[in-house]
Amino acid sequence: MNELRKDYLIDRWVIIADERAKRPHDFKTEDVQDNKDKCFFCPGKEHMTPPEISRIEEDSKWILRVIPNKFPAVSPCGVPEIKTDNTFYTYANAYGRHEIVIETNEHGKELEDLSKEHIKKILETFILRISELMKDPEIDYVSVFKNKGKGAGASIAHCHSQIIAYNSVPATIKYELEASYKYYVLNKKCAFCDIISREKNSDRRVFETRHTVAFTPYASRFPFEIWLFPKRHISGIGELDGDELLEFADSLKRILSKLKDIGNTPYNILFHSTTDYFGNYHFHVEILPRLTTWAGFELETGTIINPVSPEDAAKFYRGEL
Amino acid sequence: MNELRKDYLIDRWVIIADERAKRPHDFKTEDVQDNKDKCFFCPGKEHMTPPEISRIEEDSKWILRVIPNKFPAVSPCGVPEIKTDNTFYTYANAYGRHEIVIETNEHGKELEDLSKEHIKKILETFILRISELMKDPEIDYVSVFKNKGKGAGASIAHCHSQIIAYNSVPATIKYELEASYKYYVLNKKCAFCDIISREKNSDRRVFETRHTVAFTPYASRFPFEIWLFPKRHISGIGELDGDELLEFADSLKRILSKLKDIGNTPYNILFHSTTDYFGNYHFHVEILPRLTTWAGFELETGTIINPVSPEDAAKFYRGEL
Repeated sequence: MNELRKDYLIDRWVIIADERAKRPHDFKTEDVQDNKDKCFFCPGKEHMTPPEISRIEEDSKWILRVIPNKFPAVSPCGVPEIKTDNTFYTYANAYGRHEIVIETNEHGKELEDLSKEHIKKILETFILRISELMKDPEIDYVSVFKNKGKGAGASIAHCHSQIIAYNSVPATIKYELEASYKYYVLNKKCAFCDIISREKNSDRRVFETRHTVAFTPYASRFPFEIWLFPKRHISGIGELDGDELLEFADSLKRILSKLKDIGNTPYNILFHSTTDYFGNYHFHVEILPRLTTWAGFELETGTIINPVSPEDAAKFYRGEL
Repeated sequence: MNELRKDYLIDRWVIIADERAKRPHDFKTEDVQDNKDKCFFCPGKEHMTPPEISRIEEDSKWILRVIPNKFPAVSPCGVPEIKTDNTFYTYANAYGRHEIVIETNEHGKELEDLSKEHIKKILETFILRISELMKDPEIDYVSVFKNKGKGAGASIAHCHSQIIAYNSVPATIKYELEASYKYYVLNKKCAFCDIISREKNSDRRVFETRHTVAFTPYASRFPFEIWLFPKRHISGIGELDGDELLEFADSLKRILSKLKDIGNTPYNILFHSTTDYFGNYHFHVEILPRLTTWAGFELETGTIINPVSPEDAAKFYRGEL
C-alpha cells in the first residue's frame, strides 16, 4: 500500500508509490503515449479503462468521462491518520482517490482548442468531483491539475486532467493559508484581493475581464508563468456562478491559446482551490509552462532561477513582444 | 541586473535571471553540448572561457580549473540587502558569484570515472572556494552542486560542478537548521547524528565505512535518492580532515559507480554544507537521480510522488536487487 511520509526534520512530504514495483532498468525514458490506435482515452476503448465514475454526453455520445486512475498514487484503504514515532518517522497510508478527467473524445485536441462552453463543462466536472470527494472525512485536500506534454510530466497525450484527493493539507496550500490569514488579521482584508488590485495595474498585468484578472506573478518560478483569478473573493472554484464560470473558462482558453505561440509548450495547470472550511483563501489557477529544468541549485536551495522576467512574460501575453 | 524576489506571501524565492533576455522562441529544447571539438571546457579552449580563478596542475598540465560562469545567475554588484515594501514585494539584487569547477581535462569522463585521489582534489577545491567566497560579508550561503545530464538540468556534458554564492540563506537549509536546532534544544544531541545511527541499521542502509555512512532517506523524493554523511559531527565540508576527505571521495565514487548500473542516469549532487557560524548542522551530500518529472501534483501541493521505495533503492545499492 502506498505510503505518505514526512522528511526526518522538515515539512516536506512524499508519497512512496511503489505498487507498480519498478525495477532499476524500468526507467528508460518513455515518450508520451500519443498513438491514437492505442489510446485508452479514445471512444471505443471504454472497456479498457477502470469502471467509469461519470460522463457528460451530447447527441448520445460522451464528450467527457471521469475514470479512476489505473495506477493511483493514493487509494481508499489503509489507515489514513498520520502517525509519528515522535523522533524522525511520520507517516500514514496514502489514503484517497486518484481520478482522471478525459476532457474530450477527440484525440489530438488540446484544452485551448475546445469551446469555452466545453471548458465550462470541464470546470463543472471538477466542482462536482471536489464536492463528492470532500464528503469523505478522511480527505483533507482535493488537488486538481493538468500535465500537458512530456516536459510537464504527462505520460498520455489525449487531453486530460487529474484529481488527487488525499489525507493531507499540502504544504504549499498550508503556507498560503497561513500567510493570507496573518495578512487578514493585520489588514482585515484578503491578501489575494489586494494582490489582484495591485497587479492588475502593474507591469505584470495581462488582461482584465468583467469577472477575471490575469497577471504574471512577481516571483514567477517559470518562464511565462501566469495566474488567473476570479475578481470575486471566493475560496474555492465551486463558488463560481454560471456567468463567472463561463468567463473563467474563456480566460483560461485565451491564456493557453496565446501560450501556443511559443510552440508546443509543455505546461501544468494547478487549481488552487479550497473549500469553505479553510476560510480566508482566494481561488486561483496557476499556469506553469515547463521550458526549464530545475537543477541542482533549485533542489538544494529552494531558490528557483527563472530566465524570463514576469514583466517580459506579461509583454508577451499582451502581444507586445 | 538579476533580481532576487520573494513570493507575495510565502517563503519562496526566485532569481529573475533575464540578463540573457530570452525571447519566447528561444526556448526550443536544446540538447546537452557534448561535441568535444566545440567544448569550451576542454584543454586548448582556455581562451574561450572567462578569466580563470584557479587551477590544479599535474605534469605541467591542468587537471582541474575554476572559472566564472559565463552566464551567471548572480553577480558581485548592485544592492545585496533585501528590501521590502512591507506589503507584497520583497527583493534584492541577486548578488554573489557564480563559478564553474571543470573537474577533469578529459572530455567524456564522469565523476565516477576519476580516481578517489582526483575526487578528493575536487572536494578540496570546493572547500577553498567556499572559504574564499564566504569572506564577502554580503554572502549568506555558498551552494555547491552538480548537474549531470539533460534531465538534471545540465547544458554542457564535460564533467563539471557549479558554485553559487549568494545573498540569502536558502529556505531548504534554513528549515533544516531550524528543525535541527529545535531537536538539539529538546534532546541535547545533533538530529543528524541520531538519524545516522538509526538509518545505518535500518532497511535503508547502504554502506558504512570508517568515516562515512550512506543510506536512502526515509522520505526520498526521487527514485534511488541516496545521502552520504561523514560520521563525525561537522557542519561544513571544510572541517573534513585529509583521511576523511579521501574516504568521502571514495564513498561518493562508490555510489555513483553503482548508479551507473541503471544506465546513463541524469543526476544532481547537492552539498549541504554550512560554515561554523550556522552552528548546529551536519554536513552531508544528497545524490538525486532524475528519472522522474515533477508534474502538476508536485508543483501544486509540494507532496512528491516517488515510484521507488527507499527500501527497494537501498536493496539496489546493496546489490540485492
